[in-house]
Amino acid sequence: MKIIVLKFGGSSVGNIKRIKKVANIIVSYKKKGYSPIVVSSAMSGTTNELIKKSKVITNNFTSSEYDVLVSSGEQIACSLIAGRLNDIGYKSRSWMGWQVPIFTEGAHSSSRITYIDKKKIMDYLRHGGIPVIAGFQGINSDDRLTTLGRGGSDASAIMCSKFFKAKRCIIYTDVDGVYTTDPNTFKRAKKIKVISYEEMLEMASLGAKVMQPTSIQDARLNRIDIEVKSSFVKKDGTKITKRKNVIANKIIRGISFTKNDAKLTLLGVKDKPGIAASIFKPLSYNAINVDMVVQNISADGKTTDLTFTIKSDDLIKTQRLIRKNSKISFRDLIVDKNVSKISIIGVGMIATPGVTYRMFQALAKKNINILVISTSEIKISVLINKKNIKKAIIALHKEFKLNK
Amino acid sequence: MKIIVLKFGGSSVGNIKRIKKVANIIVSYKKKGYSPIVVSSAMSGTTNELIKKSKVITNNFTSSEYDVLVSSGEQIACSLIAGRLNDIGYKSRSWMGWQVPIFTEGAHSSSRITYIDKKKIMDYLRHGGIPVIAGFQGINSDDRLTTLGRGGSDASAIMCSKFFKAKRCIIYTDVDGVYTTDPNTFKRAKKIKVISYEEMLEMASLGAKVMQPTSIQDARLNRIDIEVKSSFVKKDGTKITKRKNVIANKIIRGISFTKNDAKLTLLGVKDKPGIAASIFKPLSYNAINVDMVVQNISADGKTTDLTFTIKSDDLIKTQRLIRKNSKISFRDLIVDKNVSKISIIGVGMIATPGVTYRMFQALAKKNINILVISTSEIKISVLINKKNIKKAIIALHKEFKLNK
Repeated sequence: MKIIVLKFGGSSVGNIKRIKKVANIIVSYKKKGYSPIVVSSAMSGTTNELIKKSKVITNNFTSSEYDVLVSSGEQIACSLIAGRLNDIGYKSRSWMGWQVPIFTEGAHSSSRITYIDKKKIMDYLRHGGIPVIAGFQGINSDDRLTTLGRGGSDASAIMCSKFFKAKRCIIYTDVDGVYTTDPNTFKRAKKIKVISYEEMLEMASLGAKVMQPTSIQDARLNRIDIEVKSSFVKKDGTKITKRKNVIANKIIRGISFTKNDAKLTLLGVKDKPGIAASIFKPLSYNAINVDMVVQNISADGKTTDLTFTIKSDDLIKTQRLIRKNSKISFRDLIVDKNVSKISIIGVGMIATPGVTYRMFQALAKKNINILVISTSEIKISVLINKKNIKKAIIALHKEFKLNK
Repeated sequence: MKIIVLKFGGSSVGNIKRIKKVANIIVSYKKKGYSPIVVSSAMSGTTNELIKKSKVITNNFTSSEYDVLVSSGEQIACSLIAGRLNDIGYKSRSWMGWQVPIFTEGAHSSSRITYIDKKKIMDYLRHGGIPVIAGFQGINSDDRLTTLGRGGSDASAIMCSKFFKAKRCIIYTDVDGVYTTDPNTFKRAKKIKVISYEEMLEMASLGAKVMQPTSIQDARLNRIDIEVKSSFVKKDGTKITKRKNVIANKIIRGISFTKNDAKLTLLGVKDKPGIAASIFKPLSYNAINVDMVVQNISADGKTTDLTFTIKSDDLIKTQRLIRKNSKISFRDLIVDKNVSKISIIGVGMIATPGVTYRMFQALAKKNINILVISTSEIKISVLINKKNIKKAIIALHKEFKLNK
């Protein structure tokens, strides 16, 4: 039996017309000799509508009931897909998390799948049925409904691929793959055919909205190849796979960037051990994500300048927290809301010296000033003025021959 | 433990404001020392919206998937009620049919509850929790979701009352009780304080929209007293109970009537054994409900006149079926669309002679012509011209002193 997991995102099942299209895609794999296991998200908009209802009651809606509420969305989508497959002559039925069952652990609304009972689904597949499994949901040891958190249907698909030993796992979404950079910002962005988990993780956490980083990590840990495709147009997608499967003809795989960053600089901070911790602890407690951090060496050994970036949305809260922080003293706080982070990503840079130099050189040629630098094994990020972002993408895209 | 079953219909939980009101009603019983078991319908409109989705796919949507689809509505309502109860400080959680579990048998979309496992809910009640159970749904022996058919949440409430041995069962709805006749048509209609199952069954099947006849029958068979109340206004409702609990001070309990009837008369039908069956068989096959039937004695023993009533909506279809029916021959077919059936109902008439006479006399005094008559043990129905319906209600209401 050639099992294939086909996962459809919210916009792919956004209305009945699209659900019919999805049914045709499923049938096309059945005809090719595959045994499809379908995993579906809720119809786009449904989950937000349900969350809105809970918010009218309270902003602290019980998380266990929140899971009951939102998991109804997948129930609707799955029954409609199975009903459509029945209508066009295929044996199919919906499976809720508790019916499979899909076991989870951890807190409500952010549970993780620990185990999927194969028995019933395998039996159904052997009898030629097409199971349509509700993504995003499972049950815990108390038989209560749980959800996996936003984007959790991807995790459902990957865990199904793992437990059912699927030959392939295709994530159908509203984009047709992963691009060298955001095609909406830069028209000449090229689709990436094959990308490693690690590169994809860097692309995702830096702004590419194709898949949730946790799901990519799940795929990486379980060595599951993922194909990302569009359910709207028939085109080759992008394959996310092991590093060694990625042909190393390119040093840089893609360019990602952020749009809503803010930079804060604390001038004349008293330089003593633990000062960074004192600054960042209250931010962390308030769920403010600090991204790039640079600390200048203090000339006199007494004070230092500390620069870091956060999401613009958190700026007011962050300023307030820093100003009322009695554990730190500083001369001045300078804020810059007009900054963006641009990153080049590629496993190729590990084996290739001079990549950093080429990046800086390419930006310098266009008179783009670098404010902060941060690097990892397969990524180099720089903070620049927001107005230069497009110019920087064009320069880097050309420098690393991404349109070839 | 004083268990009380509180059932809320679709309009009672129609929006968040009403759900908050429902939570207050539940709490008021908790404060009085009751242990409430809540049974909820879907928010009004939800089920119809879901059905519409299935109809866009096909009019023959698989019934098992239809059940998965529509049962998501109760899931939403129950989680919102439980979430609200939590928010105002009460221990509560939602229970889907499969979690209780509630076992059903019979065809999908028209299943019947056979057994409710008490264990988990009783344990939860003992720990002071308020369970909010999804009405209208259960599971079958294959662990598949089933629904009880339209209005099935009433059946859920009655079966919960039975299995949990509830002291009381209150059906909260958008009307504040059962009236002597439709208060929208006749302003002076009076609320009935106590009515027997049998009377209520006749009232329901003749047009009173308070409860589904099947649920009243369930209550009757299990000897469960039902209180019908409004969740909108704080007023005494109507109690539906055993015949012997109903004080027999009234001969007639209420007047019900239909609005959309049509009368058909076949003139000069060849009178031979089985002729009525030949006429009605194709109607029955086409789900056309024949109500009153009158056959005149034939003078010559060769032909007869046959009159019957149907819903106006079925008239065109019925005429076509009769005209193309090769098994029967008749001289003419006369149709009257302007008829209504008016019925007086009351267990008191069993022991009281002369009720029929009083009814006919009261109508005759107002020059209302009776077209067809039909009687049962506790009901007398007559067919009259539609234009006389209001006049007839006033006359009968007065004759049987229903406004006292």
